Amino acid sequence: MITTDILIIGAGPTGLFAVFEAGLLKMKCHIIDALPQSGGQLTELYPKKPIFDIPGYPSVNAGELIDNLMEQIKQFQPGFTLGETAVSLNKIDEEWFEVITNKGTIHRAKAVAIAGGLGTFEPRKPPLENLEMYEENGVEYFVKEPENFRDKDIVIAGGGDSALDWSIFLSNIAKSVTLIHRRNEFRGALDSVEKVQELKDAGKIKLITPAEVIGLKGDGKIEAITIKTDDETYDLETEYFIPLFGLTPKLGDIANWGLEIQKNAIVVNNALDYQTNREGIYAIGDVNTYPGKMKLILCGFHEATLMCQSVYQRLNPGKKFVLKYTTVSGVDGFDGTRKEAEKAVVKKID
Amino acid sequence: MITTDILIIGAGPTGLFAVFEAGLLKMKCHIIDALPQSGGQLTELYPKKPIFDIPGYPSVNAGELIDNLMEQIKQFQPGFTLGETAVSLNKIDEEWFEVITNKGTIHRAKAVAIAGGLGTFEPRKPPLENLEMYEENGVEYFVKEPENFRDKDIVIAGGGDSALDWSIFLSNIAKSVTLIHRRNEFRGALDSVEKVQELKDAGKIKLITPAEVIGLKGDGKIEAITIKTDDETYDLETEYFIPLFGLTPKLGDIANWGLEIQKNAIVVNNALDYQTNREGIYAIGDVNTYPGKMKLILCGFHEATLMCQSVYQRLNPGKKFVLKYTTVSGVDGFDGTRKEAEKAVVKKID
Ligand SMILES: Cc1cc2nc3c(=O)[nH]c(=O)nc-3n(C[C@H](O)[C@H](O)[C@H](O)COP(=O)(O)OP(=O)(O)OC[C@H]3O[C@@H](n4cnc5c(N)ncnc54)[C@H](O)[C@@H]3O)c2cc1C
Ligand SMILES: Cc1cc2nc3c(=O)[nH]c(=O)nc-3n(C[C@H](O)[C@H](O)[C@H](O)COP(=O)(O)OP(=O)(O)OC[C@H]3O[C@@H](n4cnc5c(N)ncnc54)[C@H](O)[C@@H]3O)c2cc1C
Repeated sequence: MITTDILIIGAGPTGLFAVFEAGLLKMKCHIIDALPQSGGQLTELYPKKPIFDIPGYPSVNAGELIDNLMEQIKQFQPGFTLGETAVSLNKIDEEWFEVITNKGTIHRAKAVAIAGGLGTFEPRKPPLENLEMYEENGVEYFVKEPENFRDKDIVIAGGGDSALDWSIFLSNIAKSVTLIHRRNEFRGALDSVEKVQELKDAGKIKLITPAEVIGLKGDGKIEAITIKTDDETYDLETEYFIPLFGLTPKLGDIANWGLEIQKNAIVVNNALDYQTNREGIYAIGDVNTYPGKMKLILCGFHEATLMCQSVYQRLNPGKKFVLKYTTVSGVDGFDGTRKEAEKAVVKKID
Repeated sequence: MITTDILIIGAGPTGLFAVFEAGLLKMKCHIIDALPQSGGQLTELYPKKPIFDIPGYPSVNAGELIDNLMEQIKQFQPGFTLGETAVSLNKIDEEWFEVITNKGTIHRAKAVAIAGGLGTFEPRKPPLENLEMYEENGVEYFVKEPENFRDKDIVIAGGGDSALDWSIFLSNIAKSVTLIHRRNEFRGALDSVEKVQELKDAGKIKLITPAEVIGLKGDGKIEAITIKTDDETYDLETEYFIPLFGLTPKLGDIANWGLEIQKNAIVVNNALDYQTNREGIYAIGDVNTYPGKMKLILCGFHEATLMCQSVYQRLNPGKKFVLKYTTVSGVDGFDGTRKEAEKAVVKKID
């Protein structure tokens, strides 16, 4: 069982920054995310794209922003439960909330911050018979752990950035990579398209286009897929089939936690602390809604900050809060490190 | 007369970032600040100090953050009235507000955003007879335009960073720089103290310590100051006297604009758009207050963003607002420049 002060559901930019603000107030955090990595929409959907409206960054790549946030919160040693979806949230006594994931991991915390963005990313699935049967038995919608594909035969389907980029990446790891797409044209970053062309010419990626996967075969796990091109239909042996047809976010189980929901988002009290209708449970970032809400990264940062103040008051009743400037007070990490401005000296000049 | 869409009072980080968010919505901004440069507290009080709680920046120097913000808003060509204090704010008709400065500059705008921080910085003044008479006639509390001191004899008084740093800076410009302090010890960044020692040894700064300035002399303008040391009292000829004894912020005239004030700050509607009790007048950043308010830079960014949305709705009644992601839409500057993410290509691989 994992216990912490603030349990954060969602490792997007909002959830990550909450760790920092909580840390300044000496509160520990643990983050759950359904994805195998942190960063939320930024790493999953547009890691190499520039963002122009992060204050103080005329331009910053989404992936780089997440790297910077990870570096910024490192001192506060957040715990992570990655690749697991929070499915239930209950108050078990006066003090503790309990959150359980789809894999049964139990988390207990004194406050919960839902930073779930637009929800978990649900893969768009191809309409294939027996698809569910093969899920986690050779059919994968995310590349969670690239090492799992070492020296395997894999087939990727799709025509966008994910299909291109994972084909490139896995061509160095897998025994063979076959990329199937129903058109001859791919749509993605110029770099990626050119790199796939190169790897194809070098025999490191096999391309089958235009073509479609129309069937899955195997006893308990994928052994082959059935491919249909303009002229023929045939079976291709493979150990993995990875259809990358895009993701759609779904609020999912969060909708069943007794929280007030409007337009697929959790209603919060923006006039004070971004708390939901259930005391001690907050919702910050894209996942919440209130009059005037804007689903922007910079807004999540502010919401996380005010939320942490409120949790601090909750956990330390009666304690007077004093706003501290990091420039003046420095930042003391839970790992014993300290960041601080260079001290002024008092020195004689003679 | 200067006209614009949003008139911003205060060129601190909050006011600056408002220009960007307004620009995304095609609204023009003009900024007034009492200081000779933009950056608010960051450039005036701690330009060389690191800040650790700007989201995405594990550490950033205050001056650098302001440089980055200036770069970020450049595309939207904000106008600046620097070195002037906004003294009056009136609604002159259905559409326009009018703001006049202490130097009589008239500004008209369709909305006003007060981003005045803790107010204007009032210098702590030495208790000298006839001090007011010499103000702007040789007595200066800010170095607004260093060039004004070229080839002049100047005396700086004070023992902190400002006194040290301006002595260093002006030693290259002025005919002579004399630094007077009532103690032998100076308090400041190690670099600065050492540099002053060096310049003193090289004869480029004259040091008089421990000593105090006890009188000012001159016919209509400063011609000499009276200095008292432990042993003697004497007059020193000089053209300028610059006492740098620290700054205290004062809300000043803003308090007389019919806005609801609490704890030296302007009460705003944080449940919606950071508007004040006067419609069309907003207050953002350190200058406002509401339940749970935190006077932090990152909060000002969020407030500026929601404020701009509200002004947009005000100026474009009935127009439906669509949130745009800069990553997806790019940023079109008023100067004709465009920032955008690399476009995806649609390309055949064969
Ligand atoms: C293409 C694109 C471009 C964009 N450009 C910009 C831009 O220029 N500027 C800008 O400000 N914003 C932009 N955005 C929006 C921005 O990405 C979001 O505002 C931001 O990601 C919200 O951060 P968050 O932390 O609140 O949520 P998210 O980033 O969505 O992260 C939420 C996380 O919660 C996890 N999660 C959800 N439910 C559960 C659960 N039950 N259990 C476990 N984990 C769960 C999800 O897996 C996800 O990782 C863009 C978005 C897209 C798609
Ligand atoms: C030593 C120190 C360390 C700090 N460290 C941190 C930190 O680590 N993190 C953090 O988030 N914050 C920190 N802060 C606070 C931070 O500086 C403020 O939150 C921030 O400056 C507020 O920005 P602003 O734009 O709202 O106002 P300000 O930066 O105060 O700018 C307001 C501007 O308005 C101008 N103005 C006011 N009235 C008028 C008028 N009538 N006419 C014309 N101009 C006017 C002023 O001249 C000023 O330039 C620190 C502050 C100090 C002093």
